Formats: sequence, structure tokens, C-alpha cells
Amino acid sequence: MEGNMQEDLLEKIRREIDLNLDQAAAPKAAAAPAAPTVRTIPGVTEFVGATSVGKTIGLVIANVDPQLLETMNVEKKYKSIGIIGDRTGAGPHIFAADEAVKATNTEIIAIELPRDTEGGAGHGSFIIFGAQDVSDVRRAVQVTLQEIDTRVFGDVYGNEAGHVELDYTARASFACNKAFGAPVGKSFAAIVGAPAAIGLVMADKALKSANVDVVGYSSPAHGTSFSNEVILTISGDSGAVRQSVIAAREIGLKLLGTLGSEPKSSQPSYI
Amino acid sequence: MEGNMQEDLLEKIRREIDLNLDQAAAPKAAAAPAAPTVRTIPGVTEFVGATSVGKTIGLVIANVDPQLLETMNVEKKYKSIGIIGDRTGAGPHIFAADEAVKATNTEIIAIELPRDTEGGAGHGSFIIFGAQDVSDVRRAVQVTLQEIDTRVFGDVYGNEAGHVELDYTARASFACNKAFGAPVGKSFAAIVGAPAAIGLVMADKALKSANVDVVGYSSPAHGTSFSNEVILTISGDSGAVRQSVIAAREIGLKLLGTLGSEPKSSQPSYI
Amino acid sequence: MEGNMQEDLLEKIRREIDLNLDQAAAPKAAAAPAAPTVRTIPGVTEFVGATSVGKTIGLVIANVDPQLLETMNVEKKYKSIGIIGDRTGAGPHIFAADEAVKATNTEIIAIELPRDTEGGAGHGSFIIFGAQDVSDVRRAVQVTLQEIDTRVFGDVYGNEAGHVELDYTARASFACNKAFGAPVGKSFAAIVGAPAAIGLVMADKALKSANVDVVGYSSPAHGTSFSNEVILTISGDSGAVRQSVIAAREIGLKLLGTLGSEPKSSQPSYI
Repeated sequence: MEGNMQEDLLEKIRREIDLNLDQAAAPKAAAAPAAPTVRTIPGVTEFVGATSVGKTIGLVIANVDPQLLETMNVEKKYKSIGIIGDRTGAGPHIFAADEAVKATNTEIIAIELPRDTEGGAGHGSFIIFGAQDVSDVRRAVQVTLQEIDTRVFGDVYGNEAGHVELDYTARASFACNKAFGAPVGKSFAAIVGAPAAIGLVMADKALKSANVDVVGYSSPAHGTSFSNEVILTISGDSGAVRQSVIAAREIGLKLLGTLGSEPKSSQPSYI
Repeated sequence: MEGNMQEDLLEKIRREIDLNLDQAAAPKAAAAPAAPTVRTIPGVTEFVGATSVGKTIGLVIANVDPQLLETMNVEKKYKSIGIIGDRTGAGPHIFAADEAVKATNTEIIAIELPRDTEGGAGHGSFIIFGAQDVSDVRRAVQVTLQEIDTRVFGDVYGNEAGHVELDYTARASFACNKAFGAPVGKSFAAIVGAPAAIGLVMADKALKSANVDVVGYSSPAHGTSFSNEVILTISGDSGAVRQSVIAAREIGLKLLGTLGSEPKSSQPSYI
Repeated sequence: MEGNMQEDLLEKIRREIDLNLDQAAAPKAAAAPAAPTVRTIPGVTEFVGATSVGKTIGLVIANVDPQLLETMNVEKKYKSIGIIGDRTGAGPHIFAADEAVKATNTEIIAIELPRDTEGGAGHGSFIIFGAQDVSDVRRAVQVTLQEIDTRVFGDVYGNEAGHVELDYTARASFACNKAFGAPVGKSFAAIVGAPAAIGLVMADKALKSANVDVVGYSSPAHGTSFSNEVILTISGDSGAVRQSVIAAREIGLKLLGTLGSEPKSSQPSYI
């Protein structure tokens, strides 16, 4: 009896271990579930907020040191800057920053994409806002964090083999323009698949599904930071752009699923 | 007694946890054991197959969208393309594609190397075949997947610290030529060690062990996508090339073993 | 009773599983605790030593193959070379090599930075010493390994979201000069934060805290190998440089802590 009970217990524990290990090995490309955004650190006026979604931090510098401003690679030398940095996510962060630019009196002065995603196949990001007034860049950072926390990861699907990412806006602004050359004011989307082979088939499907214009095409050796992605960006009529994105998403999810478990998104789809 | 039995059980469980954790933390650079290749997805004619070896997918597009073809970085604008994409592995995939080119009426029109291996030290790959007829590229993709599933990872040895990779062909064709500048029709090999320091000593040993010609040398800042590898490619008499490879492998495995557990290959050695 | 005891045991095991999983998921950017450095491999004269700190290996080649020397990207063609390679760490390894150059009759002939850290946000490194005599490069490699094993990781703090790294020398030599353009003989430091956004705020704080000169500024798309870091290098009066570093460290640790657990260092702080 004792033996049997021990066996039962052992089995119970084995299942628990497996469960925990599955979680430990969970897809890194997929965003973690949203945790409450941290709001303040005593004495650190630079801190605006942080979220576990993409491991993203939002910061401001009210008055950048002049020596530093001189050496930074930025388009305009604003003394007040807002900063978004993260480990996982470039498209969603840029589309979030795009909303922030629309909503505030700020400019995007730099977007750089590290090769990251914590061992995943894509990018992190490093985005800088500039403004005359620190309250403006603070507000831009807040809007960006809010978008990341709640919306823009809605169509980022990951599993242990890669990710399928769709980013869409009905009206592109200056972040999408700076990062991707999006025509300002027009409907715009990014279609991303990793490994890159999946992204290429998604791109083909997108263009065959509706009458849209190609804005750009990036691949591991051209236009990415050596990420394992194909990224197609498209513009056009809002309905057509959405139709393209939806068709690309459908085939991307099927293909990615052949390399692992069913790809999941951490937020509700918004496209 | 009860206490002792609990202690025994606890010990048993501890070992089980450790074992499972070791597996969870297993070398990412090494290929996973081959799983049965998936063959079809209903309604998705682009899908050819997938294998867990390197997390590799094989795809075809029968008639690439003209707008897409215009923006892709390919050497020739074939309307039918075959695509190989993976997270882990560049050398093995290129040597596999080399066999496919020999066996089919196709050309290699692009080879790009993302910095990947899922947190490991090397590359993934993104390889595109072109042909007049979709049946030809489909066949090329099938041959490539078959090689990856069964053979070309035979001399890729990984542990938690890095990898030692040897790739060899008795007769190089156009994939090895495009990726590495290999002289077509001659015996050819790639000798790879990661971290890069190990690859450098392997390269030296290879050249001292037999009379072979250097085709190329790549390192983290020159000729790789910032991977942590030294890659030496050599050509020459078949016996000499194999002798070089075997000598490099021997010292590489000893050196990599000092940084972790004994490096293992997931397939039987073929060199 | 039996049930309760089993529940207690189950709870005990759950805690043990959680603990082990925390360790399995531990910050990759942070150096592992120092393990005894391995000293010899029978028959392999190239091996000098290895340490688990950063997964670092130290090697020498007494007489580099001439064909190899011809193709390597090195500044001077010494026949005896010493090699340091690692998966995690660039700053600490370069500062360690700097001490080795001061202590030996060697030159630094190459420093290359792979994008690595095993899925973390930073670089590995690949450093080559040259000398007329193999005993000199062997000694340089030994000094470098010793520094890595015991000291230079003292101010590298990691958690699951990134790292904060501070490197300092009272008197820069030729490794810091080659890698960063440091003025030789002057006090010099590198201030690094990942994700990059944190590094930018650290850089600003550093420059506002003392009167130091900017030597260089790197970011994901400029001067790094697409790592997710901002790296500020500074020079000047020794006290001022240290004061800058300490201020940057303080804010960096607070910011990184908002994205995960308390950042930890594996060696005692030396700055």
C-alpha cells in the first residue's frame, strides 16, 4: 500500500514537474501575460513605467546632457527625450509609438532595432521621442506603454519555433514613416513571419489577397538586424490592407503550427 | 521509518527534477532528435514538409506575386520558388541544398543567414531555389528536407557552451558555390567552431593536417551575421579534405568539452 | 494523517521545483559562479584554460599556419597568437585583456564582438594577442583568464530582463584603446545598460555626475553588433570617472529591477 501511494504521489509530482518545465520552456517570442505596469521609483524622475509585455521600459530625460546629445544618433537635438526600450518586439512597439506621436506634441528622433527577443527569432526596439517640453515626451511614453500593455500585441502569435506578427493602423503617422517609410495618413500594415521562410509565404499570400501597395520587404540579410524574419509592409485602402493581413495571418499560423504547438497570442486580436 | 521513506522519496524526486532540468537547459545549438516529417496541411499547397531537426520548414510558391518578386533580393526572377527556412543550422542546410541542386533542375537564387540558433552561437538559414516548373522546386525542397532529417547533422556536435560543426561533400555544387565560393565539382568542407576561439584552433589544425586549399575564413565581425563562430572552408583532394576535417573535429570536441558536457551529435557521423 | 504528510511533502517538493526552475531560468547575461579553471588536456598544447564565468576559453597557437594567417583579419601577422573566446561578456573580457597587455610582452591584434550572451542582450568576444614568442601569449591568456575568473565581472549585474555592466581601469592600455579608442595611460570606464533604454539613462546620469570626457557612444544600430545595449565610454581624472560609474550603476540597477528580480553580480564589486 505504502508503495502504491508513493507511486501515485510520484506520478502526481511528475506531472507537476512537466507542467512547470513546459512553462519554463514557453515560447520566448510570444509576449508574456500583461503584469501591472510599475509607476514610480522614489527619487528616479526618469522612470515612467514598465511592463512585462515584451519586457518593455519607458523613460524620460528632461534635459539631456549636452555632451551625450552630441554623440547620440538622433535626427534632431531636442533637450527633452522620451525612451522606449524592450527585449521582445519591434513592430508592435513602433505601431504603439505611432499612436503616441498622433496623440502628443512630439517627434520620433530615432528608432533602432537590436537583434533580440531573448533567444527568439526577432528584434527588440529602442525608440526615442523628442519634444521641447518634458511633459510632452512623458505623455508619449505613457501612451506607448498603454498601447503595448493592452492592444498592439493582439496579433503577435508565438510558439517554440517562431512567431507570426501582424501590425495594422488605419492611418500611419511619423513612427511608421520613420521606421518603415509608411505614407503618412494612409492605412498601413506590417506582415511578419519567423522563421523567415514562413514570412515569405505570408507576404505572397498578402499580395495575392487584395489590391495593396508594397512599401518594403526585409529579410535576414537585407533590412533587418539579421533577424530570422521576412517583413512585408503594405499600404492602401483600409479594407484591402486588412484583408491582406488576415489572409497572411491565416496561412502563417498554419505553417508555424507545423514546427511546434499551436501559436498563441497574449492579447485579444485587434485586426 | 516514515521519515526515512519520505527522505528516500524526496531524493528520488530531486534526481528526477535535476534530470528534467538538464533536459530543459539542453544545448540549443545541437539539433533536436528527428521527428517524423509532417507532409500536408489541407488547403495549403505551399507546404512541403517540416522537421524538428533545426526546426526546419520547406515551402514552395508556384507563381510568386510579381510585386513581391520585384522587391525580393534574388539573383534571378523565377516565378516558381522553393524555400527552406530554419532556426538552427546554416552549414548543414546549405550542404543539403547542394545535394538538391545536383538532383534537380533548379538553381539557388538566394542564401541568407540570420543570426539565430535559438539563443545558441550560430546561424539559421533562409535558402531559395528557383525553377521554371513548380514540380522541380518542390522536389528540391523534398531532397533538402530528407538530407536534413537523416544525414547532414551527423557531424554537428553541441553542448551547453557551443558547437563543433563539420560539413563535407565529395563534389561541391551550386549551393556551396553561392554560399561559400566553393569550386564546383571539387571536394569541399566547412569547419566550424563556437565559441569562435575554438573554431580558430580547429582551422589551424585542419590546415596543418593535410594539403588543402583555403576557400574562405569567416569570424564574428567578418563574413558571419555576428555569430560566435570561426568558419574555415577548404577544397582539394577528397582524401586530404576528409583528413583535415577529421583532425579539426578531434581537437574541436576536446576543446568544447572543457566548457561543458561531452558534445553530442543527433545523427550518426557521415564524415 | 498520511494525507496531510503527503500534502506537506508535496508542498516541500513544489518549493524545490520552483527554486530549481528559477535557477533554470536565471539571467543569462549574468556570469555563472566561478568554477575551477581547467588547466590541461593531454596532447592538446593549444589549451590554456577555461572558466564557467562567461563560458570563456583561453588558447594559444605557437606557430599559426601561414595560409590561415593570410586570411585572418588581424592587424599584424605574428606567428604566435593567444586567443580568448567566450559566450557572455565583451567589456569585462576586454578590460581583462587590457591588464594582460600591461603585464606581458604582447600586442592585441584583433577584437571582434559576436552578438551572443546565450539569448541575453549583449555580446560575447573573440580577442587575439600576438607575440614573437608563444610563452608571452600564453602568459597573456593566463592573466586574462585569471582576471575573468576573479575580478572583472564584479560589476556585471543581471536579471531575467537584461544587464547593467560597469568596467573600470585606472590606466587604460592597448586592449581598451583598440576596442574603444581609450586614451592610453588615462583612467577609463565603460557604462553599459540593456535593454538599451536603460543604458541611455545611465549614460546621461554618468555625464551629469562628474566632469569626464566622452570617448564613445554605441547603440543597437551604431557601433554594436546589434546588441540591445547603450554603451558609453568615458575618460578623465580617476576620481571623476569612478564617480560617474557609481552614479550610473545606481540608477541602472533601479531601472533594471523594474523589469524583473533584483539584479545580481557573481563576483564582488571592484569599482
